[in-house]
Amino acid sequence: MTRYERVAAVLRERIEHGLYRPGDRLPSIRAVCQEMSVGISTAQAAYRQLMDAALIESRPKSGYFVLSGGAPSVLPSVSRPAQRPLDVSQWDQVLELVATQRDDHRLLLGRGIPNLEYATLNPLSKILAGLHRRTELNGFNYDKLSGSPELRQQVAKLVVASNCLLHPDDILITTGCQEALAIALRTLTQPGDVVAVDSPSFYGTMQILKANGLKALEIPTDPQTGISLEALELALEQWPIRAIQITPTFNNPLGYTMPTARKRALVQLAQRFDVAIIEDDIYGDLAFSAPRPPTVKSFDDDGRVLMCSGFSKTLGPGLRVGWLAPGRYRDQALHMKYVSTGASATLPQLAVAEFVAKGYFDRHLRFVTRQYQRQRDVMIQWVQRYFPQSTGISYPQGGFLLWVELPAAVDCVRLNERLAAHRIHVAPGSLFSASGKFRQCLRLNYAFTLTPAIEEAVRCVGSLAGTMVEEALQPLE
Amino acid sequence: MTRYERVAAVLRERIEHGLYRPGDRLPSIRAVCQEMSVGISTAQAAYRQLMDAALIESRPKSGYFVLSGGAPSVLPSVSRPAQRPLDVSQWDQVLELVATQRDDHRLLLGRGIPNLEYATLNPLSKILAGLHRRTELNGFNYDKLSGSPELRQQVAKLVVASNCLLHPDDILITTGCQEALAIALRTLTQPGDVVAVDSPSFYGTMQILKANGLKALEIPTDPQTGISLEALELALEQWPIRAIQITPTFNNPLGYTMPTARKRALVQLAQRFDVAIIEDDIYGDLAFSAPRPPTVKSFDDDGRVLMCSGFSKTLGPGLRVGWLAPGRYRDQALHMKYVSTGASATLPQLAVAEFVAKGYFDRHLRFVTRQYQRQRDVMIQWVQRYFPQSTGISYPQGGFLLWVELPAAVDCVRLNERLAAHRIHVAPGSLFSASGKFRQCLRLNYAFTLTPAIEEAVRCVGSLAGTMVEEALQPLE
Repeated sequence: MTRYERVAAVLRERIEHGLYRPGDRLPSIRAVCQEMSVGISTAQAAYRQLMDAALIESRPKSGYFVLSGGAPSVLPSVSRPAQRPLDVSQWDQVLELVATQRDDHRLLLGRGIPNLEYATLNPLSKILAGLHRRTELNGFNYDKLSGSPELRQQVAKLVVASNCLLHPDDILITTGCQEALAIALRTLTQPGDVVAVDSPSFYGTMQILKANGLKALEIPTDPQTGISLEALELALEQWPIRAIQITPTFNNPLGYTMPTARKRALVQLAQRFDVAIIEDDIYGDLAFSAPRPPTVKSFDDDGRVLMCSGFSKTLGPGLRVGWLAPGRYRDQALHMKYVSTGASATLPQLAVAEFVAKGYFDRHLRFVTRQYQRQRDVMIQWVQRYFPQSTGISYPQGGFLLWVELPAAVDCVRLNERLAAHRIHVAPGSLFSASGKFRQCLRLNYAFTLTPAIEEAVRCVGSLAGTMVEEALQPLE
Repeated sequence: MTRYERVAAVLRERIEHGLYRPGDRLPSIRAVCQEMSVGISTAQAAYRQLMDAALIESRPKSGYFVLSGGAPSVLPSVSRPAQRPLDVSQWDQVLELVATQRDDHRLLLGRGIPNLEYATLNPLSKILAGLHRRTELNGFNYDKLSGSPELRQQVAKLVVASNCLLHPDDILITTGCQEALAIALRTLTQPGDVVAVDSPSFYGTMQILKANGLKALEIPTDPQTGISLEALELALEQWPIRAIQITPTFNNPLGYTMPTARKRALVQLAQRFDVAIIEDDIYGDLAFSAPRPPTVKSFDDDGRVLMCSGFSKTLGPGLRVGWLAPGRYRDQALHMKYVSTGASATLPQLAVAEFVAKGYFDRHLRFVTRQYQRQRDVMIQWVQRYFPQSTGISYPQGGFLLWVELPAAVDCVRLNERLAAHRIHVAPGSLFSASGKFRQCLRLNYAFTLTPAIEEAVRCVGSLAGTMVEEALQPLE
């Protein structure tokens, strides 16, 4: 064993014994030299060996960090929803989550909002301020109904990263991704129609189904590979499904990314049954490693995939800038866009276009994804540390949402009621089901700057959940 | 006859003989003194007498102007639509009007866009620029789903001018008035339902009916008093009408304002048949005289009126800031708002709230309504001068849209085709009907700064229309 191999073996042992946990920073090269009395080149060679073994990673200007050693031992279960179309309920619970206001003093651990405190967002504020000074832009007038040409051009360039080749005219700018989803569903369906969805599924989409009188057919979904194509095929044979609605990349809330081969197979299945796919890719740009996964849309060779996305999870939801790539349904989608809100607001579109064109967006993405990856690992550690035993945790490779499956005794709607006294709110799993299933699950956001206050809140959630487990074990009086 | 009465009589004669037309500026006091060899107090007394007789008006810092002597002699006809529910068509024509882009080099004489060049708008740009520099506002985050509390408070104050007493919680901020109308219609109806509308009616609302599978029952409408309550009552007896959709103040496109007593009677009629009213008040703040007319909503004592409005016609449509006062339907409307676009964009709301709170909005309204009133008179003169004889013209008391009814031989859809060579586009009347009626009518915008180029364009429209009249008189070969 050479000198550098001995150094590497010592460090590896410390990692494997948990002295350094995933996400932790390792000692600097200089510190290793001092501690082990070796030269700089030896320490560097040791670290290189650990990187080759995928145990650690180097982060520019930050040092060396322990990588996550793979998924946490317990994943959430494969979902087993009712195999029949259902009306969607749960609006009251969704309203409680989304109708919060700026002066709400609760800590909303479950909301789907990115971290808005990073300095890499500052150029966007500057660009917006500048646009408002340049009055010749006529920014108070309507933009084109399909969206600003500048922004559609930038979006067409961005989606190349997901293997999509779109012309700017293939894209409609929308007022947030929510409008893209609403337009897509209204373009494809009539009241009473059945839409197949992954399960659990984003509550915003579920509520669109409710508002349009559509029925949700929830398909069993695996926390690692996504919607079951086998169950979907059976459902397509059995029910008159008008559209398949999925979030196949960094799924909200379950965290999976469908393997590329399954994405391709999904398109083939849709072609065989001549049904359209609505793909929600809103978290897709927040990949922890490059290249980001391809979209289902990238396999769409006959225009049946309507891809919905936007900048709400990367830049900020208050901008309300989203987009829809409606494929062969462009004409109907444009009509739906017109009647929904007319043209989208002009200046936010121009500002985002400039932010992307000048390279600020790429820089911001590189920064936030490094943060989110690190914070995912920290949040997983906290859940493992503070939540009841046998709690399942998702292991997303992008985005900033964690799905946590507690023991069956825990009812997260009731848990939220107990948390109210502590001014904490989680997103109960029942939001993500047509019929209020997944009550033992909850969604956590790890985009927060993870302060001791957040750790204390997670500990509080875990502790109250543990109490509920214990109460269930008490004999009835 | 005193000296000042003699001076007044001379000026009156000149006005009555058309030497000074409505909207023209009269000679200054000094000029009158010189011409008629009288003193300043005599000239002032003469002008005061003409003002008391409502022949002229004084405009601060501008001088004295001839008032319009009442409506132009020929008004458009009372509409006689088909008295049965119809599916809405005309999307292709609407798309041609609204899908124009910034680099469109046509002169769009018919679009519903205010003048965005007035300096009284500048503080809004400054406020927006300032907000983007104040990062602590967290303007990239979601605002409250129902809208920014600051803005709802300002809107509640604004609507007092229309005799409405609303609490800020009675108001939902929307992404433009179009979203307010879409939410109101979706809140009240199911596909297949019948909605009674004034006729002609705003194409944006008509297209919402189309997108939702609703049927339009067009009610005869008078160019001075609005929707016929008698015909509406008959229709309510005969058809299962779910909602009445009207624009009762400075109607788009017909220009009428329903007399206050008829607005009250409309609410009573709706109560008797237990049907809801959707009131589009988007032009209501642009009144040429104070106080502005009351809204139908101001007579609503049981929450059945859903009032839709916004800042698109006063500040700028590219801001996309509108509002809905949904009355008793608030819960359903909030759900529809959530699924449509989620919360509306944050910073435009805060900017408009500040613009209103600081008094800039009132100042801006005072300025633009003076401009628009003057420009209405000029545009009416141009139409009278350049359009074929017996052309009917509306006489709105607010807003910036004129409805022009040409001789039956003129087809404005074909007229637009001929105008294309001159890079001019008007809004053909057929846009405003479910079934493409009103082809001999067109809508003109007088918000433009009325340059010689605009006069030349109006002359061109009139001249080509005249050609169509002559062609119709030729014997067939």
